[in-house]
Amino acid sequence: MDALSLILFSGDYDRAMAAFTIANGAAGAGDKVTVFFTFWGVSLLRKRKTTGKGILQTAFKRLMPCGPTDLPLSRFNFAGLGPSLLRRLIRREKGQTLEDLLALAGERGVEFVVCQASLTLLGLTPEELVAFPHLRVGDVHDFLQTAKNSAICLFI
Amino acid sequence: MDALSLILFSGDYDRAMAAFTIANGAAGAGDKVTVFFTFWGVSLLRKRKTTGKGILQTAFKRLMPCGPTDLPLSRFNFAGLGPSLLRRLIRREKGQTLEDLLALAGERGVEFVVCQASLTLLGLTPEELVAFPHLRVGDVHDFLQTAKNSAICLFI
Amino acid sequence: MDALSLILFSGDYDRAMAAFTIANGAAGAGDKVTVFFTFWGVSLLRKRKTTGKGILQTAFKRLMPCGPTDLPLSRFNFAGLGPSLLRRLIRREKGQTLEDLLALAGERGVEFVVCQASLTLLGLTPEELVAFPHLRVGDVHDFLQTAKNSAICLFI
Repeated sequence: MDALSLILFSGDYDRAMAAFTIANGAAGAGDKVTVFFTFWGVSLLRKRKTTGKGILQTAFKRLMPCGPTDLPLSRFNFAGLGPSLLRRLIRREKGQTLEDLLALAGERGVEFVVCQASLTLLGLTPEELVAFPHLRVGDVHDFLQTAKNSAICLFI
Repeated sequence: MDALSLILFSGDYDRAMAAFTIANGAAGAGDKVTVFFTFWGVSLLRKRKTTGKGILQTAFKRLMPCGPTDLPLSRFNFAGLGPSLLRRLIRREKGQTLEDLLALAGERGVEFVVCQASLTLLGLTPEELVAFPHLRVGDVHDFLQTAKNSAICLFI
Repeated sequence: MDALSLILFSGDYDRAMAAFTIANGAAGAGDKVTVFFTFWGVSLLRKRKTTGKGILQTAFKRLMPCGPTDLPLSRFNFAGLGPSLLRRLIRREKGQTLEDLLALAGERGVEFVVCQASLTLLGLTPEELVAFPHLRVGDVHDFLQTAKNSAICLFI
C-alpha cells in the first residue's frame, strides 16, 4: 500500500476533476490517499454562502463558490455556462462529473484535510462544510508529515 | 538512471514551456521521462480542428487550440498576440520556443502518454494527434504506476 | 532533516502565498528548503521596472509585476484591488501576508534559486532582484539535482 497526497489549491472545476480522478484511481487500487484543501480549493466543500465578519470577509465569502456545481472552469468558463456544458458532455460520454468523483472519493475512504489558515482567513467553520466521513481540519505541519511519507505528492 | 513524470494538464504556452524545459533537461541527462497529457494539455498534440458528435462536442473541439503555436499564454495573452511576441523574444535571445522543445523531447525519447478519458470526452482519436515516436494512450493507472517509480513527479 | 523543493512558476499573489507557507513551515521544522523562481515567479523578486533591449523586451518588463505587493490574484483580482483587500483581510485575521512570508523565508534560510533562462529571456540581471542572503542563479540541472534529493517537490 502506497500513500498519495494532493494539495487542492485551485477552485476550478476542471482542475478539481483532475485531482479527484487521480485520488479515486489510487484509492480504488488500495492506496492511502489524502487531499488537502487550501485557499480556493475550500470552495469545493462549502455548503452555502454565509456572511463573515465585516464587509470585507462577507464580500470574499459571497464571491467564493459553494460546492462542485458552483465552480468555474479555468478556461472557456463563459460566465458560468462552461461548467454546465462540460457536465452535460461528461454525462453523455458516460464519464464522471466532479460531483460523482467527490462522492466516490468519500466512499473510497479518501481523507479530506482542510487547511486551518484558509478557514480562519475566510471566517469559515467546519460546520459550514459538507460532512464527509473522513474530513478533518489540519495545518501545514499535518500536510508536510503526510506528504513526506507519500510516494506521490502533487500541487493542483 | 532516474525516472521523472510530468502531468501536463494545462494548455498554456508558458506552462507547457516549463514542462518541456524540465523534461528535456532530464532526458538530456539520461533520465527516463514520461509526460502525461490530460485535459487542456491534449491541445498541444492536436493536428487540426475537427468536428465531434453533436453541437456540444464540436463546440469544445472548435474552441480547444491545436498544436503549440495555437496555445495561449496564462497571462498577457492579449487575444492571442502574447504567444507570438513571446516566441519572437525567445528567438532573439537564442532560446527555445515550445515548438523547438516539443521536437527535442521527441528526439530525446521522452515518452508521451495521452489520457484516454480526455480523448473520449472530446471525441478525439489518436489519429487526430501529432505522430510522435513514443506516443501512446493510457489511463490513470498507467500514470500512477509510472509516477510511483519516479524520483520527481509534477502536476503542471 | 528532509529536503523540500518548490518551483514557483506562477506570479500570482495567492499561489506564491501557498508556496511560502509550505516553504516556511518546512524550514521552521528544520528542513532544507529550496524555491526555484521561474517565468512569472521571478516577478516576486524584482526591485523595480526597468527597460530592456528593444521595444519587445521593454514591453514585457513593463508588464511584469515587481515584488510581492505588485502581484495579482489568480482570481477576483478586480484590476488590482483584490490583492490589497486580501492583504487587509489577512492582517485583520493576524495572518501573514506574502511580504511577511517572503521576509520570514529569508530569515529561515530558505534557498532562492532564480532560473537563468528566465532572466535571459527578460533581460534581467541579478542586480535587478531583491538581495536575499541565500539567492543565487541556477539552471534546470541545478533544479533536477536538488529535486531528486527532495522528499517533496511541487510545481506551483
